[in-house]
Amino acid sequence: MNIDTLSTFFNPKSVAIVGASNTKGKVGFDIVNNLKKFNYQGNIYPINPKENMIQEIKSYKSLEECPSLIELVFIAIPAKHVINIIDQMGKLQIRFVVIISAGFKEVGHEGILLENQLLISLRSNNVRAIGPNCLGLLDTHTPLNGSFASRMPLKGNLGFISQSGALITGILDWSLNEGLGFSKFISVGNKVDIDEVDLISALAKDDQTKAILAYLESIERGRKFIEFASSITRKKPIIVIKSGISKAGARAASSHTGSMSGTNTAYEIAFKKSGVIQAKNVQELFDMAVAISSQPLPQSSKICIITNAGGPGIIATDAAEFAGLELSNLDHDTIRALQQKLPMAASTLNPIDVLGTGSADDYFTSLDLVLNDSNVSMVLIIVTPQGMTQPLKTAEAIVSSKLKYPDKPIVSVFMGGVDLRDATQFLKSHKLPCFTFPERGINALSGLWRYSLIKNRPVLTDYMQFDDIRKDLVSGLFKSLYQKNRMTLLGSEAIFVAQAYNIPCPSTRTAFTVNEAIKIAIEIGYPVAMKVSSPEIIHKTDFGGIFLNVQTEEDLSLKFKTLIEDARGYFPNIGLLGVDIQQMSPKGREIIIGISEDPQFGHLIMVGTGGIYANYHKDVQFGLIPLNQSEAKDMLLQTRIYQIMKGVRGEEADDIEKTIEILLRISNLVTDFPEILELDINPLFVFKKDVSALDVKITLSREKLSERYSNEI
Amino acid sequence: MNIDTLSTFFNPKSVAIVGASNTKGKVGFDIVNNLKKFNYQGNIYPINPKENMIQEIKSYKSLEECPSLIELVFIAIPAKHVINIIDQMGKLQIRFVVIISAGFKEVGHEGILLENQLLISLRSNNVRAIGPNCLGLLDTHTPLNGSFASRMPLKGNLGFISQSGALITGILDWSLNEGLGFSKFISVGNKVDIDEVDLISALAKDDQTKAILAYLESIERGRKFIEFASSITRKKPIIVIKSGISKAGARAASSHTGSMSGTNTAYEIAFKKSGVIQAKNVQELFDMAVAISSQPLPQSSKICIITNAGGPGIIATDAAEFAGLELSNLDHDTIRALQQKLPMAASTLNPIDVLGTGSADDYFTSLDLVLNDSNVSMVLIIVTPQGMTQPLKTAEAIVSSKLKYPDKPIVSVFMGGVDLRDATQFLKSHKLPCFTFPERGINALSGLWRYSLIKNRPVLTDYMQFDDIRKDLVSGLFKSLYQKNRMTLLGSEAIFVAQAYNIPCPSTRTAFTVNEAIKIAIEIGYPVAMKVSSPEIIHKTDFGGIFLNVQTEEDLSLKFKTLIEDARGYFPNIGLLGVDIQQMSPKGREIIIGISEDPQFGHLIMVGTGGIYANYHKDVQFGLIPLNQSEAKDMLLQTRIYQIMKGVRGEEADDIEKTIEILLRISNLVTDFPEILELDINPLFVFKKDVSALDVKITLSREKLSERYSNEI
Repeated sequence: MNIDTLSTFFNPKSVAIVGASNTKGKVGFDIVNNLKKFNYQGNIYPINPKENMIQEIKSYKSLEECPSLIELVFIAIPAKHVINIIDQMGKLQIRFVVIISAGFKEVGHEGILLENQLLISLRSNNVRAIGPNCLGLLDTHTPLNGSFASRMPLKGNLGFISQSGALITGILDWSLNEGLGFSKFISVGNKVDIDEVDLISALAKDDQTKAILAYLESIERGRKFIEFASSITRKKPIIVIKSGISKAGARAASSHTGSMSGTNTAYEIAFKKSGVIQAKNVQELFDMAVAISSQPLPQSSKICIITNAGGPGIIATDAAEFAGLELSNLDHDTIRALQQKLPMAASTLNPIDVLGTGSADDYFTSLDLVLNDSNVSMVLIIVTPQGMTQPLKTAEAIVSSKLKYPDKPIVSVFMGGVDLRDATQFLKSHKLPCFTFPERGINALSGLWRYSLIKNRPVLTDYMQFDDIRKDLVSGLFKSLYQKNRMTLLGSEAIFVAQAYNIPCPSTRTAFTVNEAIKIAIEIGYPVAMKVSSPEIIHKTDFGGIFLNVQTEEDLSLKFKTLIEDARGYFPNIGLLGVDIQQMSPKGREIIIGISEDPQFGHLIMVGTGGIYANYHKDVQFGLIPLNQSEAKDMLLQTRIYQIMKGVRGEEADDIEKTIEILLRISNLVTDFPEILELDINPLFVFKKDVSALDVKITLSREKLSERYSNEI
Repeated sequence: MNIDTLSTFFNPKSVAIVGASNTKGKVGFDIVNNLKKFNYQGNIYPINPKENMIQEIKSYKSLEECPSLIELVFIAIPAKHVINIIDQMGKLQIRFVVIISAGFKEVGHEGILLENQLLISLRSNNVRAIGPNCLGLLDTHTPLNGSFASRMPLKGNLGFISQSGALITGILDWSLNEGLGFSKFISVGNKVDIDEVDLISALAKDDQTKAILAYLESIERGRKFIEFASSITRKKPIIVIKSGISKAGARAASSHTGSMSGTNTAYEIAFKKSGVIQAKNVQELFDMAVAISSQPLPQSSKICIITNAGGPGIIATDAAEFAGLELSNLDHDTIRALQQKLPMAASTLNPIDVLGTGSADDYFTSLDLVLNDSNVSMVLIIVTPQGMTQPLKTAEAIVSSKLKYPDKPIVSVFMGGVDLRDATQFLKSHKLPCFTFPERGINALSGLWRYSLIKNRPVLTDYMQFDDIRKDLVSGLFKSLYQKNRMTLLGSEAIFVAQAYNIPCPSTRTAFTVNEAIKIAIEIGYPVAMKVSSPEIIHKTDFGGIFLNVQTEEDLSLKFKTLIEDARGYFPNIGLLGVDIQQMSPKGREIIIGISEDPQFGHLIMVGTGGIYANYHKDVQFGLIPLNQSEAKDMLLQTRIYQIMKGVRGEEADDIEKTIEILLRISNLVTDFPEILELDINPLFVFKKDVSALDVKITLSREKLSERYSNEI
């Protein structure tokens, strides 16, 4: 048996429950009870050293005693005894376990130690585990309710993975009211072994699951997540809610799961990069999921709205535009036919208003015409209960139209409660999404359109390789810095690194004495810029540590002394201290390019409006390393400064191609040297032709530097 | 009887129904039927010339024949006969009518004419009318169902005004399912006489209405709306949905109601200015309304969350932060007491997690402690259905806590369906808001907090009056322009207007000949700026129509000719053409100030990042004229450029006071001269001390100019 195939978790031939109990209120009671009550068909082996029968099933003292092969074990005993069970499983070659027991890393220091031991035991015994500290799992198709949730979901095709067990019980209970069906519910708990990446991959292979839904508080294997999700989303939709996105929420999440939350930005970009749809809330998650799992994907963003009420039609129109959908311009033939067949006062432009008197026939006629119109890719039907409304007949008309035009998505909004209940039920029973308010219907259709874009997106492989770079120079410098135990580069060193990757920079060298300064200035050629340079000074402009346009040797000498004295005045204990002598550059458009590291997803890259006010302009876009050409271009295009860079009112454009190239060169630099912790180019001057990186800052990670170079020295 | 008091509409002693019918499916049938069915207690007089009995009530041939006084008439006959009925009402001194009949301005040209005649008839007969083209009105307290809606809402304290009748039928039907109560539903229809402003004022005086809700597509009397709503919202909340806010939605709205929609910006600012809460959608509207109409207002934005599930607690924490609420730091005593009374593993920091095992007692204990903590102003309770959850008992505990602490708002989220139904019903029956998802609970609390800020906001009267302005100079100029029939000011004229309102500008005069130019330059003093000047040239920079820093007479003469020749080259048929000679100014921070006119709400004023890239920076904030000091300051504070203006990294701040003063001077100018259609100052240079309006553009409204000056000439 390949233990990487997790399907046994969902369809085991036999299960054992360690900690099975006859006492109501105990988790070990609930699991046995749920297995029985919800018709699990395999063998059930309750394990309890003190009992002979558990809930009328023969019980065993230990796993060893069980008469036949056990495929899956549920553990619901105190944390400290769990590892013992895993060891027994190892001996018996049982490969899969769901650890319900709590008392691991969520309880602090001791729990963390215990969980670490648990992981070692799992690995050495070759056992794959879900949990600990979880609700369990439910599969409606097997059927298997291996959880302490008190209910069984309706059979359906949504697979839900949750980092919160209680969210499952809430959603499960709610879904019964809504008539929403699931294939699986999986509570991941502390993720000691199996995590959301494994489970998403498992659900991707599961024929009963059409859409993968997840509630996530953190993702530890960020890169793997992107890799797996990127390929899955071309076949099956993944829709997630990421919580802990606010500052306060992140604190709550971290106390809850004991895991470190990444920044919101990194998650958003990771989701975008991998084609994962991020829902704003639970309701939106399910509104999109219901549509995506039951409807075909639209060919375009063009929507037609049919309504018997003007107001809700306008509300839907507003919502459609905000969601990026476009109201179709109907074909002249369609409009003419609508005019002939609908009452004179009806509006035959989109939204089509069949009026308060609109009959089921009027809806059917309109639907038939617009579904047959190639300008329409999806339809939203709105029904409000008015005097002559025929809710159920209208629902039937919608179902008939759907049968005739199975390839275009139809979503309904039956806006009401009491009078529309039967019609709503009828639609749902025919797998046609139906909502109470127009905005939710639009959310559903917008989810379809978003997923259609994701599913059909090209595979981007346009990573740029450059053959003009000098890796050896950079690695030589970093090695020497590691030896000197200095993590912050001098300005001239950072520019040296940039130049090694063929990023245009003005000539820059650091002088530690006046004589050196004079010599460098002669070599570079006057006028020069002078910048105080020390690993210990981050914001040199804060104390006027810069002189521009220095023209003469005399002036240079004077200013050298001033810079050094001022710096020593501010930082009396400063160590390494010099002055960067830099070739003067003409002024260009000020862009910022930055790199920072996210604990889950690796290096983030940023581009946008630069200059000393960069923080205030708040005009930056982010991406994840490695960046391909399309992504780099997209990032730049989404900045406001791009609108200016491309030339306004007849101005010639800035060198946008070159700016994108610099992003890619930086991406390659950081990919080659992941020990770069932070990097800032600010400003990158962009000219009509070419660019120049005026100021570069680089900080290295001691840990990664040591990983890389400690063996070489 | 004072016909401005609209209360008779809601509580008439007797009603007549013109067009009453025995035929099912006719509106005249439904109205009589609804009056009877829903227990209207006054006299009902069906009017139908062909019948003697309508639905078992004695019927009359005409209003005249009715035996006693009629207070309110419903009309449901074809449009063309309506005016006839109004004339009869006039003779009989009946003052109030609800015109259900359609066929007025919504059907186009003929309908518009008919509606105009209707208005004249209403005025001359001293009759106040709701409609035409409306659903009617419903009052649950009278009770009165004077509509063709097929159901009656539950009794409650929400008053709902709707510009869409069908939305009422949808919401009414939905509300029965939700257990939501209303005082009144009013369908405004085409608003020939009574509009949302009248009805909001009427509901403000209505004791049975605690919150005024409205669905609006357009507001015609924008200024009146602001005036009335501003005072009402200090006593009663007004919550609205404004539809037609997208570009496509505005089109749909305008075809629907035949009225011209204002821009979204103007509405948003008008709502903000008058303390009206704008809901994003129908669900949010009611979530906030339910809380506001049943809960006390919080003293601060500090919230405590109590949950039995981590995940939903984090979701609520995220939502709270995004809604601008703040998680309370609990008092040490509270935390200690929680630690003593809750299980050890429970989280006693906010959000408080009573764990999956949390009992009703645990909730009660926690609630009691946090409601007693002065750091907590409102509480969100989250309950998910877990094994040991006691939903109904927990609901009872919440009700008890509420009785003990009536002054702090409590909102519950019972996240589920089947298992939590009884508990949810119990809470609702005790007027305690209860929702399915955390985000909705937070919406409700955020509505309470928003309304508490609105209710307690100071009355702002800090309108600045300036005694250094020269109205006479401006009115003289405008009068002469009216005589010349020229609506666009030359640059020098616009600067003359600004200077008349004591806005600092560089000296600027227009030369039409070289000799004039030389003379002006000598008077102003070299160096000067030269700008081509003509009412027909809007974007002079587009063809290089500017020279800066002109130093000598010779250069001036040469450049004068170039400018004139270039302009004639671009615009061969140009009329008035000269060159503005302007004193050179040092460069300052570039700000833009603009004025435009909104058809509903009057003049909008704008401030933000200026310069030639102003359109690309998209950093502007809007306000409505007249502006007071606080509003002007608020506007500027919300721009990004303000963050730079106030000084970064130790820089001295720009002259912010003066910038605000300029906004107020412009506000006064436009208030004094509403004939100003558009005005642009770009750039306004802002220095460390003082400002200078370098370029001013003004366009006048021919219509308003004529209103003002035609009599004087």
